[in-house]
Amino acid sequence: MTDLDIRPATPDDIPAIVALLADDPLGAQRESPDDLTPYLAAFERLDTDPNQHLVVAVRAGRVIGTLQLTIIPGLSRQGATRSLIEAVRIHADERGSGLGGELIQWAVDTSRRLGCQLVQLTSDKKRTDAHRFYERLGFTASHEGFKLSL
Amino acid sequence: MTDLDIRPATPDDIPAIVALLADDPLGAQRESPDDLTPYLAAFERLDTDPNQHLVVAVRAGRVIGTLQLTIIPGLSRQGATRSLIEAVRIHADERGSGLGGELIQWAVDTSRRLGCQLVQLTSDKKRTDAHRFYERLGFTASHEGFKLSL
Repeated sequence: MTDLDIRPATPDDIPAIVALLADDPLGAQRESPDDLTPYLAAFERLDTDPNQHLVVAVRAGRVIGTLQLTIIPGLSRQGATRSLIEAVRIHADERGSGLGGELIQWAVDTSRRLGCQLVQLTSDKKRTDAHRFYERLGFTASHEGFKLSL
Repeated sequence: MTDLDIRPATPDDIPAIVALLADDPLGAQRESPDDLTPYLAAFERLDTDPNQHLVVAVRAGRVIGTLQLTIIPGLSRQGATRSLIEAVRIHADERGSGLGGELIQWAVDTSRRLGCQLVQLTSDKKRTDAHRFYERLGFTASHEGFKLSL
């Protein structure tokens, strides 16, 4: 696990990130890696929002993982700020290598540094391996996650 | 249901919002309505973030509900922007009146207007009534919701 770097994503990383998003049983149906236009526009929205942290994990110059962390202020829990983890993806060659744990640890450490009192995420009920992974990292599956497509 | 107004919260609404947050089986254990200082600081963080929409529902000059909507850009799902609903509370006198549905409908309409393709929320597994409510409104309980306290 030497020379792993977790750093903010740049526009040059978009092709690699989209490839990771698409190389996934659920993502394969909903991504369009042949047309990066909507992803570049979305990157611009992320990049100009100081509460958004899109990162890549890089080893030997190769993007092997990605994660998006959102910082969310709020009134509840005595004005607690929370963070939300989205879009965690690990390259197929690196699954089981511990990289997922390092990425989540980065998100937890960054959340703490930025004053968050809570980290949250949702995971599709089909991803049962992911659920065991998050529980091993200390997360509790205390909530139902609801989605509505518009 | 006449003269209901759903509008952005102001600092003057904080005591009423905190009272709503505390008047709840789960919230009673984690709020401090006697000291508003942390809530006022949190309101400042919300108020300066253009992706945050903290609203109150008001009828006859009285705050009877609240909800926080966060707009979250992202790369996944072809650069889809999503929204997150947090901290939905309805005054005890108004539960069952349809106000909850109106507040969620406001959040869905606002999300659509702001270009979101997905609305999401999590609800504590103990809140089984809330789960039926969200399913009636068209939400799907497709995800596990994980939390980690820092």
